[in-house]
Formats: sequence, structure tokens, C-alpha cells
Amino acid sequence: MNTYPSKLLENAVSELSKLPGIGRKTALRMALHLLRKDISEVEALGDAVVKMRKEIRYCRECNNISDADLCSICASPKRDKSILCVVETTRDVMAIENTGQMSGVYHVLGGIISPMEGIGPEDLAIESLVNRIAQEEVKEIVLALPTTIEGDTTNFYLYRKMKDFKLKVTTLARGVSIGDELEFTDEVTLGRSILNRTPYEGMLLKK
Amino acid sequence: MNTYPSKLLENAVSELSKLPGIGRKTALRMALHLLRKDISEVEALGDAVVKMRKEIRYCRECNNISDADLCSICASPKRDKSILCVVETTRDVMAIENTGQMSGVYHVLGGIISPMEGIGPEDLAIESLVNRIAQEEVKEIVLALPTTIEGDTTNFYLYRKMKDFKLKVTTLARGVSIGDELEFTDEVTLGRSILNRTPYEGMLLKK
Repeated sequence: MNTYPSKLLENAVSELSKLPGIGRKTALRMALHLLRKDISEVEALGDAVVKMRKEIRYCRECNNISDADLCSICASPKRDKSILCVVETTRDVMAIENTGQMSGVYHVLGGIISPMEGIGPEDLAIESLVNRIAQEEVKEIVLALPTTIEGDTTNFYLYRKMKDFKLKVTTLARGVSIGDELEFTDEVTLGRSILNRTPYEGMLLKK
Repeated sequence: MNTYPSKLLENAVSELSKLPGIGRKTALRMALHLLRKDISEVEALGDAVVKMRKEIRYCRECNNISDADLCSICASPKRDKSILCVVETTRDVMAIENTGQMSGVYHVLGGIISPMEGIGPEDLAIESLVNRIAQEEVKEIVLALPTTIEGDTTNFYLYRKMKDFKLKVTTLARGVSIGDELEFTDEVTLGRSILNRTPYEGMLLKK
């Protein structure tokens, strides 16, 4: 469909279709939806995205998205600063926070090393991570990066950077998902879950 | 996920998730995507939707979305004003215009009669349609409304409104889609396509 009845509509559709996963048909549906809304509601949407982009900040400690100079996690006295969980993006922080199981703080790399996409270590918040380790009393680094080639590369790069410090370096346990049937679990996951089997008593204690 | 690291981000996500078909996870993906864009690009999006909502107008003749008082279709001297195609929304105008087969002009009702949703004839652009028919030299009304109970109800309502005028009232031909296999066509469509079979020569001429 390219015969838009209005330039204003066409322009809105073309801007909306730049959003990830939104094609021109969906963008048109969104634009027509907005036309039926009050001006104040449409302004609320426009203001919210522009204000977010203009005013959002990144925590000076952990590089996570934040409203302040220091994010609420880094600012909290309840968090254990000796455990530092390294993640790719803000979304990973949100996912881990949702579990309520991480007592430590985070470090958001802002990506992972990916030669295919031209992302090298210098594009990521790795220097600030090393500085944090050198200055602070970090005792454990939890690597929570994706299990992809890029994630493994980044893990290995970070591991080498950290080996001069006295640190415990751990990664997330990979294994069969809770509730999953063994017969439907992929071989690599099942194989790793056998290699990294955990003591039964330990499981009970952690509950 | 409800532990947003920033109120600004949360606000943007909640506004974006008001768009049709967008849940909070998709809205978060959109918001994080916008955070990686230049401020100017995010402003372009915000401005485009707000400007569209504020400045868009509806054609005084056909009620279609328009940048001017009269839409480009109604303003065109090439269009046959004696044929008036009645549609539900702007999207239908765009779909029909894309075929290049409609030489007449349109009338956008802005909806169809739906007691379930509380939409009655007085909520639609029906009075202006009757006024157009009374004033202009309309010879044919093409009813291009959906084939739903609501569409049929609206068709019937309009038909009764129009029966005092000397008019040819037609509807879109319904039948087997071009390229469709007969065995996979639903019974109602196939049945109707038999009842409304067209002369073979006519088909050739229209091509």
C-alpha cells in the first residue's frame, strides 16, 4: 500500500516502521489508532520517548540505565559489593533482578565482542570493569553472558583480563530447565548438566 | 519484568505498550532500540506522530484523511463523481486505490453499525452521505463494506436510506480469489460465486 491519503500520515507511518519488528502495515495500523486518540495521549507518547532519550543517564559505576548519576542498585547499602555480575544489556539486569536471587551488583558491558558486527573490546565497558575490580573489594565475578560463540569469546577475554586479580570467577549454571522433560532437552544442555552435576544436599539447602 | 532501572524508561515502555498489538516486552525492546538512536531520530518519531494527530484533517466531501480541506481524490478532475464507493475506513480507500480500478470517488463512514460496540448510524458519516447523494449527480453507489453481520446490517441500513433516490446500488463481487483452488475455497464463498456467476465474455472485456 503506497497511496497514502496524507503526507502527515505517510510520514508518521515511515517513522513508526523504523521501530524494530514493525513493518509498514503494522505502522499504518498504529498511526490510524493514534488518530482516534486524544491529542494529549499522542503527546504523552511523543514526550515519553523524546524525554527518555534526552534525559536518560548511565550509572557511573555499573553502566546500567539510570535516572541518576548512580543507579538504585549501586546506591543501595543492602547490595553486596564484593559480588559483581557481568551482563550484556539492561534487559539481562532486569531478568536477573526479577529472580530476586542476586545479592551483588552488576556491570553492564553494553554488548559482547563480535568481530562479525565489528564490535571489539574497546567498544564495550571493559576498561571500567577492570578499574572497578582494581579499586573495589570485589571477591567474585559472575559472568552472565549469552552461551553463544560471541558470549564465550567475551567470557574468555574477560577471564584473561582478570587472572592477575585475586578473584573467584563463576558463570551461571547451565542445565535442564526446571519442569523440562529430559527427552526434550537438547543434547548439549543435557550433556553439560551431567558434567556439572550438583550435590543433592546442596540443592535442598539452596531452596 | 517490572523492575525497570529508570522511571523514564518505564514511562516510555508504558506509553509504547498502549499501541495496538504491542506488549510490554516488545515495548521494552522498542525503548532500548530508541536509546541507541540519535536524539534527532527519536525527535523525528515523536514529532511525526504528534504533528500528524494535530494537523491531520478530514475531507469535507468524503470524510477521508486528508492534508487539505478537500482530499486529492475528491479534488481530482479525472475522477467520476457519479460513482460513489462507500467504505468503512481510510485503509479500505488505500486498498481499493492500489488496484487502480476505481474511477469514482469515495465516502468513508468511519466505522460500521455495531450494536455490540455501541456504534449506531448517528456515529457514522451517513447523514453527509445522504446529503451528497441528494445534492450531487450520483448515479451509482458501490457498497464496499466488510462481509460481516455488522457490514450486512450497515449495507441494509444504507440501502433503505437510498431507495428514494434514483440510484444504482452495487456491492463488490464476492467469489473465489484469483489463483485459489476450488477445493480449498470455503462453501459460502464458492456457493455465492456460483449464484453470481458472470458471463465469460464480460470477464475477457474487463481484463
